[in-house]
Amino acid sequence: MTEMDVALVGFGTVGQGVAEAIATKNHVLEQSLGDKVRIVAAFDSSTYAADKKGLDPLDLVKRKAAKGKLGKVRKDSIAEMLKTLDYDTLVEMTPTNIKDAQPGLAHIKAALGKGRDVITSNKGPLALKFRELANLAEKNGCELRFEASVGGATPVINMARELLVCERICSIRGIMNGTCNFILSRMESEGIPYEPALREAQQMGFAEADPSYDIDGIDSACKAAILANAIMGLDITVHDVERTGIRGINLDAVNLALQEVTSRGAEVSPRLIPRGHPLSISGTLNLFHIRTDLAGEITVAGRGAGRYETASAVMADVYTVMKLRGSTGQRD
Amino acid sequence: MTEMDVALVGFGTVGQGVAEAIATKNHVLEQSLGDKVRIVAAFDSSTYAADKKGLDPLDLVKRKAAKGKLGKVRKDSIAEMLKTLDYDTLVEMTPTNIKDAQPGLAHIKAALGKGRDVITSNKGPLALKFRELANLAEKNGCELRFEASVGGATPVINMARELLVCERICSIRGIMNGTCNFILSRMESEGIPYEPALREAQQMGFAEADPSYDIDGIDSACKAAILANAIMGLDITVHDVERTGIRGINLDAVNLALQEVTSRGAEVSPRLIPRGHPLSISGTLNLFHIRTDLAGEITVAGRGAGRYETASAVMADVYTVMKLRGSTGQRD
Repeated sequence: MTEMDVALVGFGTVGQGVAEAIATKNHVLEQSLGDKVRIVAAFDSSTYAADKKGLDPLDLVKRKAAKGKLGKVRKDSIAEMLKTLDYDTLVEMTPTNIKDAQPGLAHIKAALGKGRDVITSNKGPLALKFRELANLAEKNGCELRFEASVGGATPVINMARELLVCERICSIRGIMNGTCNFILSRMESEGIPYEPALREAQQMGFAEADPSYDIDGIDSACKAAILANAIMGLDITVHDVERTGIRGINLDAVNLALQEVTSRGAEVSPRLIPRGHPLSISGTLNLFHIRTDLAGEITVAGRGAGRYETASAVMADVYTVMKLRGSTGQRD
Repeated sequence: MTEMDVALVGFGTVGQGVAEAIATKNHVLEQSLGDKVRIVAAFDSSTYAADKKGLDPLDLVKRKAAKGKLGKVRKDSIAEMLKTLDYDTLVEMTPTNIKDAQPGLAHIKAALGKGRDVITSNKGPLALKFRELANLAEKNGCELRFEASVGGATPVINMARELLVCERICSIRGIMNGTCNFILSRMESEGIPYEPALREAQQMGFAEADPSYDIDGIDSACKAAILANAIMGLDITVHDVERTGIRGINLDAVNLALQEVTSRGAEVSPRLIPRGHPLSISGTLNLFHIRTDLAGEITVAGRGAGRYETASAVMADVYTVMKLRGSTGQRD
């Protein structure tokens, strides 16, 4: 048996969920691949813990909950430390920053730059610098995987890239933002106006105090850009996505927020969907509708956010990276 | 560049669709894997063509359309010929026979028996002899793949087995029969009774003249048994599935035909689904709703039947077998 040594960067909801999932699922990885994951370093925004022999994942979660920190205060930047640390795979889970993609961008470049595989849930680097990162990964023979960055637990990226390889993918339409879909579903089903529907979403924890990122379509535009780049082979950023949010939308207007990616480009806006159509779902699910030449249409839906849901997507990528490395030999 | 030599058995709608898909997609396989598919033999129910140097797939389709046959009349059974023929992979697409699974069962056993990979769209052998075939494949180091046997183009089996490896799958619910769903959708949306809805399905080509296989839930029960075996690790046959069809169902009754597989067993019956639920779709689509421990719930839907749709699922398996064989070395 061998281990895949991972550095976890970002120890908020997603990072903690991934640590717990590693604890829960290591026996599945071992049964299936003969390999386990060993956490050799974990970083939150200001502290870190590192041990070549491996850190106990549940102990990290407990420590973070009890003390609000993982260990020692950092002196260098995480990116600098990732250049010298010894690990096989970076799991990057810092929050999305849509202005300059930092610090996630620097973390991912540091790992890929020294030939390490990267798994990330962070939309920023992918929505702003996709092609640069994909090229760097290819040049250095690394995996760059990001199922968790779009649609939470929904396996849309891996499905399109691994199960639909023989298909020509003509377009991807999706309900990519659970907050918008919740607000619009409530407005449509209960006939309540926008403002109370938004407040309800905030009370239930589906929308932030400042909901701009969701309701102005920025989150959806990031996801649309990532899908356009990863699945349709385009080379665009979030700024290339035509975007119409749902802020202040009135009851007479359309009833679902839909995002669309075709080979011509990507667009985000509310759209009218007939009942009974596969895109007609209510609530906070994410949903993707892929048109192809042979299969015709394939729809995949799942929970778009959440601690274990996002961890689920990260673990799918962990499994694949371990499987690929197992068959081609461990590095170092 | 190398070739994967395939024997196509069954040259009806699905077989012809696969031949056309091979012609259309060989360049994609070559680009992606450096390998192509070569058809070295093709069988319809009474004739065959064989050529070690490869048969032109579109020529086979033309010949079948023009003359109703592929070539010479067979003297031996296909199963006997599959024991002596030289090929890497059997693609088995004869019609489902739910009584004794023949002749598909004999074909698959002949190929696996001599260490050849098998890809099939035929539900019969899988719904009646799953564990025997899976064990034979494992013993002889062969792939046995059958995405096309459940849900047409919908990649439910490969998604569950390859993308959700780290998940504990608790249950699978699905709308597994497009004919039933079409009839129930028409009854529910238009308020028309069962008989005219069935006639409409027959006129539109969604239901056979003898619709028993669909409306009595046999088709769904086969699919439920295959999913239970392949994804949940059960060891059941179609006869173990509790089954309630929709024959003569009245308007007051429930409005969707739902199949369910849990670790306790499998069941087929009409069920009531709320609007806006991911399982609430109308028309002839197939849909599968998978509950897991981390992801929570994942839904995948697609076209449940059709020439190119079924070929799409076969091609996905062709790709994977080629990829696996490419990384472990061609046999022979």
